[in-house]
Amino acid sequence: MPKRQSLHVAGFSHKNPIPAAARIGPLLMSGLINGMDPATGKLAEGLEAQCAFMFQQVRNVLAGAGGTPDHIVRMTVWLKDRSQRGPLNEQWLAMFPDAQDRPARLSLQATELTEGILVQCEITAWIE
Amino acid sequence: MPKRQSLHVAGFSHKNPIPAAARIGPLLMSGLINGMDPATGKLAEGLEAQCAFMFQQVRNVLAGAGGTPDHIVRMTVWLKDRSQRGPLNEQWLAMFPDAQDRPARLSLQATELTEGILVQCEITAWIE
Amino acid sequence: MPKRQSLHVAGFSHKNPIPAAARIGPLLMSGLINGMDPATGKLAEGLEAQCAFMFQQVRNVLAGAGGTPDHIVRMTVWLKDRSQRGPLNEQWLAMFPDAQDRPARLSLQATELTEGILVQCEITAWIE
Repeated sequence: MPKRQSLHVAGFSHKNPIPAAARIGPLLMSGLINGMDPATGKLAEGLEAQCAFMFQQVRNVLAGAGGTPDHIVRMTVWLKDRSQRGPLNEQWLAMFPDAQDRPARLSLQATELTEGILVQCEITAWIE
Repeated sequence: MPKRQSLHVAGFSHKNPIPAAARIGPLLMSGLINGMDPATGKLAEGLEAQCAFMFQQVRNVLAGAGGTPDHIVRMTVWLKDRSQRGPLNEQWLAMFPDAQDRPARLSLQATELTEGILVQCEITAWIE
Repeated sequence: MPKRQSLHVAGFSHKNPIPAAARIGPLLMSGLINGMDPATGKLAEGLEAQCAFMFQQVRNVLAGAGGTPDHIVRMTVWLKDRSQRGPLNEQWLAMFPDAQDRPARLSLQATELTEGILVQCEITAWIE
């Protein structure tokens, strides 16, 4: 039986007692990842900047588990305004340029996000 | 290390640069599946018709990965009106007639679905 | 190919034709778990009591699959009022006292929960 690993990532502090992600065997699942600037610990201004930091944190979380974006099976994205998917798709295409090698994605409208959050995501990955 | 596969399904076009589903190893996860009529590319009229097309697309997505409904571990369903689960349960029972062999299901209320969408779902499947 | 198992748990009756959880191979995913008191079949009064019963049911669902909380990779929690995470964290810390051995957690705001439900969750677990 493989033991659970809790991943704690630098610059990914959490007000609640939860890790950035957890893994058992090949299955890695993250907590919520938002557009916080790890240098300041504050949310970045605007959707474009939040998307950029969010994807950077996705990389950091995966790296903490010895993985890369190649290991993501699906990403769920919650948007304050789901009609504004331009900045999300820009980062997405930079991370996943090959149409034959992309994870699945769920984009959900979420008007009730915590004050200031314009976008947040989770990832499910398979790392062998 | 198994490589990620992106699944593109006929009649499942997407405005965004994402596949219908992705798979690494045995783990398959879909994007959002709704009640679009693949013949017209438009959402079907009414909850009953949307549920029927949605379950048809669930089959198509699985078939694209060499799977069947037997491989679904869980389905999440978002309903515009969660109190209206009759048509959903009808399709569900047709796909999963045996009470000892059904996936788990999460049904979530989602009043903020994109214009016209009454129901949408995602699936997580295990295909060996 | 491992066969799907549907888990039915005592005191976890469901108005819809779905099991408490399903499993294929090592992957276990639950349906929605709320703060129902299994002795009365009714929702407990208040967030604290609902959280206590919810975590008890999490244990029951895992036990039905031969698992324990050690097997949880991630828990998603929907709260009527996401700012009230005290009782959730209390149960969480009791179940997962070791910061190096905790699952990931997603906490989502959900004002549209069914009448009376203050908190509900799902779990994804890996049981070998």
